[in-house]
Amino acid sequence: MARVYNFSAGPAVLPEEVLKEAAAEMLDYQGSGQSVMEMSHRSKVFDKIIKDAEQDLRDLLNIPDNYKVLFLQGGAHLQFAMIPMNLMKNRVADYIVTGQWAKRAFKEAQKFGDAKCIASSEDKTFSYIPDCSDLPIDENADYVYICENNTIYGTKFKTLPNTKGKDLVADVSSCFLSEPMDVSKYAVIYGGAQKNIGPAGVVIVIIREDLITEDVLPGTPTMLQYKTHADNDSLYNTPPCYGIYICGKVFKWLKKQGGLEVMKERNEKKAAILYDFLDQSKLFKGTVEKNSRSLMNVPFVTGDADLDAKFIKEATEAGFVNLKGHRSVGGMRASIYNAMPIEGVEKLVAFMKKFEEENA
Amino acid sequence: MARVYNFSAGPAVLPEEVLKEAAAEMLDYQGSGQSVMEMSHRSKVFDKIIKDAEQDLRDLLNIPDNYKVLFLQGGAHLQFAMIPMNLMKNRVADYIVTGQWAKRAFKEAQKFGDAKCIASSEDKTFSYIPDCSDLPIDENADYVYICENNTIYGTKFKTLPNTKGKDLVADVSSCFLSEPMDVSKYAVIYGGAQKNIGPAGVVIVIIREDLITEDVLPGTPTMLQYKTHADNDSLYNTPPCYGIYICGKVFKWLKKQGGLEVMKERNEKKAAILYDFLDQSKLFKGTVEKNSRSLMNVPFVTGDADLDAKFIKEATEAGFVNLKGHRSVGGMRASIYNAMPIEGVEKLVAFMKKFEEENA
Repeated sequence: MARVYNFSAGPAVLPEEVLKEAAAEMLDYQGSGQSVMEMSHRSKVFDKIIKDAEQDLRDLLNIPDNYKVLFLQGGAHLQFAMIPMNLMKNRVADYIVTGQWAKRAFKEAQKFGDAKCIASSEDKTFSYIPDCSDLPIDENADYVYICENNTIYGTKFKTLPNTKGKDLVADVSSCFLSEPMDVSKYAVIYGGAQKNIGPAGVVIVIIREDLITEDVLPGTPTMLQYKTHADNDSLYNTPPCYGIYICGKVFKWLKKQGGLEVMKERNEKKAAILYDFLDQSKLFKGTVEKNSRSLMNVPFVTGDADLDAKFIKEATEAGFVNLKGHRSVGGMRASIYNAMPIEGVEKLVAFMKKFEEENA
Repeated sequence: MARVYNFSAGPAVLPEEVLKEAAAEMLDYQGSGQSVMEMSHRSKVFDKIIKDAEQDLRDLLNIPDNYKVLFLQGGAHLQFAMIPMNLMKNRVADYIVTGQWAKRAFKEAQKFGDAKCIASSEDKTFSYIPDCSDLPIDENADYVYICENNTIYGTKFKTLPNTKGKDLVADVSSCFLSEPMDVSKYAVIYGGAQKNIGPAGVVIVIIREDLITEDVLPGTPTMLQYKTHADNDSLYNTPPCYGIYICGKVFKWLKKQGGLEVMKERNEKKAAILYDFLDQSKLFKGTVEKNSRSLMNVPFVTGDADLDAKFIKEATEAGFVNLKGHRSVGGMRASIYNAMPIEGVEKLVAFMKKFEEENA
């Protein structure tokens, strides 16, 4: 079978160029006589892989010097615990709940202190981003938490919340490197790699250095302390080496494309093709309020569950795969991450048009 | 460069056949049109990958039905915390300290309760396994902990400790699948994949079902509860999919070799070639007491640091790589895991003989 157009929400499509390079290097990475999977994480050759990956990420996001970059394991889910265990000095934190993962992060934080939900869009199935210009931020809050792009619901914060001076922590898993960010506006940025960056099993944390301290909650495991990893440049224990290597290749690919300004333009163009079609379609409609729409995840429905199922089946047969919406929402969702080429979106829309005509 | 003979202690050599298959499938796994890195962990195709991996592991180790197999993240190091957080109901545990990782596990457990070191071989740089036939096991001990094969020091438990009826927990990272085990003698067996099984970033836990409960220590993160992962067949969150896929290929390779009895014979033969040479050499000598010798990790020295360095340099140039001993021990160490072919050991010994003649 030829390569499909893969609209998976994550793990998700990777640049074909990256996969080809990885395949070619599988038995012998750059004359080392070893696969990257086989080499010591303390070898010179791997040291260059991880250092280059960090530097390329720093270049792409223009990360200030007073931020550390950590390559960790456990996914965003482990960050749901690490964030409060490391940052909740006053045992108070404010959460903005805009989807299932933000809610899970909020519930996890409640294990460790007084985590409060200060805004939510659950009343309308998380189909919008609430107004966050004047929220009741607790004066003792250690941080304000957001999930910046909500993979399941297809929403994105277009402006960051007014945290009234408190530190902002953001899960950016599904919008990571989709456009430039001003890192200095955040205290912690983190994301699972498996959406826009690389394979599952790597989570990247960008954290302001003053937050990396030994003053963590009692009973915090050594492996869950940012300081453990920061002090050892992510090599306290064996890191997920192969995943980091693939992430590094994706960073190089992004630089070659022209960096995040170029990706932003491209992603806006791709998203517009799909949203413009949805806005004029008589069969399909987007589920998200227009001013909260994600560039990365585009959920849509026909309004008829049987027709949704028929569409997904026929699309799959035509080589447009993983279009089924998250099991908690239903309908369809097209995730159009960095590595989804523009022609993938164009062809999908052409297919949707044809389906609409046939099922009018 | 051709493939080298890779004696790395981990990440370590993998079967060439496995790497070739992985390279061939990189852009299109079995007609799916996707890389395994790109596919949803909830897709049918990945479901088969993880289920097959589990079944093949169960077949190889003859795992009883009342044990769960979990594919987790965070390496052995995260298990150092998960073990006490999940099992230390009485807040008492007995540790046998036979190396640096056992010691680190012991120190971590002390965060959570009364962890005691009931035996140690630190007095002789961990060069032997202490007599564990009649240890002062605490009557309230929730478990007895061992590191079964000590990667850095090259020792292995030849008989399991007499736990006096208490549950036995074993880190088997560096001897996993090197020979058959009687799983029923253990409460928990776990190992990082990156030595004998697959790439870094996967840790496999085999745990008796009655130990998987909600009754964990207060403040245990959701992700650090075995029940979270057991209830969701290792898919509570996105698992390290690609790593699990490679582990699965290694399990199939092991079955094709004839299973763990055959691997044991082969590993004994390989180890004998090296140990027999060391025992008669006038230049090189093994550092471990004979009855504690590991089949997997063989440390040796010349007794002269400059000569050690010369040997490592010349060996590397000759294509025998990663022979440098762990930084805490010095000298040399040849790790001869399952995927190291017998001719790799034969050629290493031939090279050592030549070096000995030239440096007599």
